[in-house]
Amino acid sequence: MQLLHNLCRIAAPSGNEAPLTTFVLDYVRQHQASWQHQPRVVAHENLQDCLLLVFGEPRTAVFAHLDSIGFTVRYGRQLVRIGGPQAEAGYRLVGKDSQGEIDCTLTVDEETGELSYAFPREIDRGTELTFRCDFRETETTVQSCYLDNRLGVWNALRLCETLEHGIIAFSCWEEHGGGSVAYLAKHIYEIYGVRQALISDITWVTEGVHAGQGCAISLRDSLIPRRSYINRIRAIAAASGVPHQLEVEGSGGSDAKELQHAAAPWDWCFVGAPEDHVHTPNELVDKRDIASMLALYQVLMREL
Amino acid sequence: MQLLHNLCRIAAPSGNEAPLTTFVLDYVRQHQASWQHQPRVVAHENLQDCLLLVFGEPRTAVFAHLDSIGFTVRYGRQLVRIGGPQAEAGYRLVGKDSQGEIDCTLTVDEETGELSYAFPREIDRGTELTFRCDFRETETTVQSCYLDNRLGVWNALRLCETLEHGIIAFSCWEEHGGGSVAYLAKHIYEIYGVRQALISDITWVTEGVHAGQGCAISLRDSLIPRRSYINRIRAIAAASGVPHQLEVEGSGGSDAKELQHAAAPWDWCFVGAPEDHVHTPNELVDKRDIASMLALYQVLMREL
Amino acid sequence: MQLLHNLCRIAAPSGNEAPLTTFVLDYVRQHQASWQHQPRVVAHENLQDCLLLVFGEPRTAVFAHLDSIGFTVRYGRQLVRIGGPQAEAGYRLVGKDSQGEIDCTLTVDEETGELSYAFPREIDRGTELTFRCDFRETETTVQSCYLDNRLGVWNALRLCETLEHGIIAFSCWEEHGGGSVAYLAKHIYEIYGVRQALISDITWVTEGVHAGQGCAISLRDSLIPRRSYINRIRAIAAASGVPHQLEVEGSGGSDAKELQHAAAPWDWCFVGAPEDHVHTPNELVDKRDIASMLALYQVLMREL
Repeated sequence: MQLLHNLCRIAAPSGNEAPLTTFVLDYVRQHQASWQHQPRVVAHENLQDCLLLVFGEPRTAVFAHLDSIGFTVRYGRQLVRIGGPQAEAGYRLVGKDSQGEIDCTLTVDEETGELSYAFPREIDRGTELTFRCDFRETETTVQSCYLDNRLGVWNALRLCETLEHGIIAFSCWEEHGGGSVAYLAKHIYEIYGVRQALISDITWVTEGVHAGQGCAISLRDSLIPRRSYINRIRAIAAASGVPHQLEVEGSGGSDAKELQHAAAPWDWCFVGAPEDHVHTPNELVDKRDIASMLALYQVLMREL
Repeated sequence: MQLLHNLCRIAAPSGNEAPLTTFVLDYVRQHQASWQHQPRVVAHENLQDCLLLVFGEPRTAVFAHLDSIGFTVRYGRQLVRIGGPQAEAGYRLVGKDSQGEIDCTLTVDEETGELSYAFPREIDRGTELTFRCDFRETETTVQSCYLDNRLGVWNALRLCETLEHGIIAFSCWEEHGGGSVAYLAKHIYEIYGVRQALISDITWVTEGVHAGQGCAISLRDSLIPRRSYINRIRAIAAASGVPHQLEVEGSGGSDAKELQHAAAPWDWCFVGAPEDHVHTPNELVDKRDIASMLALYQVLMREL
Repeated sequence: MQLLHNLCRIAAPSGNEAPLTTFVLDYVRQHQASWQHQPRVVAHENLQDCLLLVFGEPRTAVFAHLDSIGFTVRYGRQLVRIGGPQAEAGYRLVGKDSQGEIDCTLTVDEETGELSYAFPREIDRGTELTFRCDFRETETTVQSCYLDNRLGVWNALRLCETLEHGIIAFSCWEEHGGGSVAYLAKHIYEIYGVRQALISDITWVTEGVHAGQGCAISLRDSLIPRRSYINRIRAIAAASGVPHQLEVEGSGGSDAKELQHAAAPWDWCFVGAPEDHVHTPNELVDKRDIASMLALYQVLMREL
């Protein structure tokens, strides 16, 4: 879990993913020699801060978003959200501006709900603040800010160790309306002919999806994937013996939104571990669901 | 109206259009010999469950969406919507799961509005339910679930009987946020150079659009089409003598949403009969408006 | 300011930009001989009513939307909005229908908020109405309807006088959900390899952005641009000595929405003067902010 801890503490809110891109690129360069198969690494300005790892002759692409939720300093002591963070008075926020490092506390106006910060000085306009990482591990769980989606990134990187054929796509802006998957989808479809996707991201513990019962395969969220693709995935998962759960929601979304609306015929499915305390500094995931997620991706990438 | 009846009773909610695609493909194969001109049939995995019929040297494409609204079984006895169906207690819903055929009744919690079903057993998670088809025909009207948009599909298929130049595009996911017209639009523009569209879909009877007074030409809905294209269509319609009405709305949408936002310069116009009891099992259309719709498409496809 | 006055009084609501396109084309033809460098003018049906001016070897594109907000006549005396105009009883609206010129008055139902008009006769269904232009200039300010975005268009045209390398893109539908920037972005990226954008549009005077203190550089609005691009722009602006302000908002949008979601890796930044009385007939801008805007675009187009 050291890799996951490292991933969770890098500040990379939507629009400023570059520090995490650099970390992932470095990680790949340091570790790829021990992987069973070597990927082509695609990273250049025409992919902005995204990154592709292309293994063998790919049939399926795994999308894992790099960015996280957070806050932007507006005027005076106002904050506006990056993505949809929970906002509870007392959360510790960190950042950096022209005057140096910042470690402050979130405040919430009880009447208006307006967000602010407690800090001895004013912070520069436009500064990004993210949750301070307090990484907690037990025998059965991990807890931290940003398991959504550093765990999805972790899953993708661990998957690389054994992957023979497939594409890993690290995307940007997922938490704040999207903005990179449209061009990644076009690039991948046009260059590699791939139009099957798995979304390596984190979902919610709910009345129907429970911690510890395995990775969730989402049959739908706010969008509805193509039924025939979902049915193939369900059949492979069922035959594999890997524990998993079926999720059905009417809301929520992921990088799949951009695939669904892309000018290419993408089939997609969200496959990810569920977490509790979503979008807080205390996101909590059961280790059995992490193991199940990685195992499921390994079998799906072989058989899809 | 036997064709329309057949179309209305096929379950094909958004994301699972394949049964209707198969039906339409079979219909085309069985009937195209009697058509005045033979189309090229384009159907392959890179169009997912969509279908193109290309006649002659096309200048204009007709979009008719295959999918319908419905419900997905969530956890326990909960239902979530596919698209925007009206939900009234007592509507009969049909489907199929691992235990067999389902014919159940919609229930609505009076306080929370939560949707459920009455059935002797629990239905599998993720099962799709659609309105049971009760097709009613009088001398002057047809009434059924899913006239939106099986009547638009019917119009497109009847148009094929005489069409010389043009493309018929059967699309998916229209009722649930879209997801196929972006790539159909790209394919059609790049391969055939076509960028004029008519949306063969069903609209609403309102204070300004009345049953029996002819097919509606929409001057705008939530989106605003290019005025110069609309003006050409209005001029052709006026000169044709075919009865029609002009619609102006501030809400609502269609496959045109994806054309409007496509990375190609599509001109589009919604042209369709109005219905009453929208998105219920009792959608009602006047036969004069059906006749007007087909006649208008015939002249527009010749003269645009 | 005669050019700005001329621009403000041309009716060109979203979807019917053609009259302004014609005006701009004529203006370019009449004035380009006096410009330091000659652009290629790109205007054809495959760009609908948009227009591109391509100077030298472009690295950056300036987007200025041609369209304005307004109203469409619905049924009887009802009006529906084009874009998001403020609606205050007594605003004068102008237009034209089959019976001739219209100069009427906006009315607002106090209880329902429904919009209507006072005029001796009924106006044709589907007629577009726009604010009547009352252009007011003082030594320090200009005031009129439609400074948003005729001032952005004015800025782009004045920029042409000295521009050596760059693209000016005049877009459509910005006020009403977009619809042209997707294909402009694709065209520009594929033909010219350009993926840097500046949005020449007008923003709001707020508690953090004040009239007279210079053009605003937006660090974010409802969307978040790529931080590394924004940082480059801030550095160039700071070194230039041109007065400017930094804006941070959680809402609002521009042509950049379509760039952000395009299937190409666009970097973008909104750079524009702030106005008061947004989306009314009385939009007010300080002349110092207009001067700052043009000066800032000149330096940014040289150095980006």
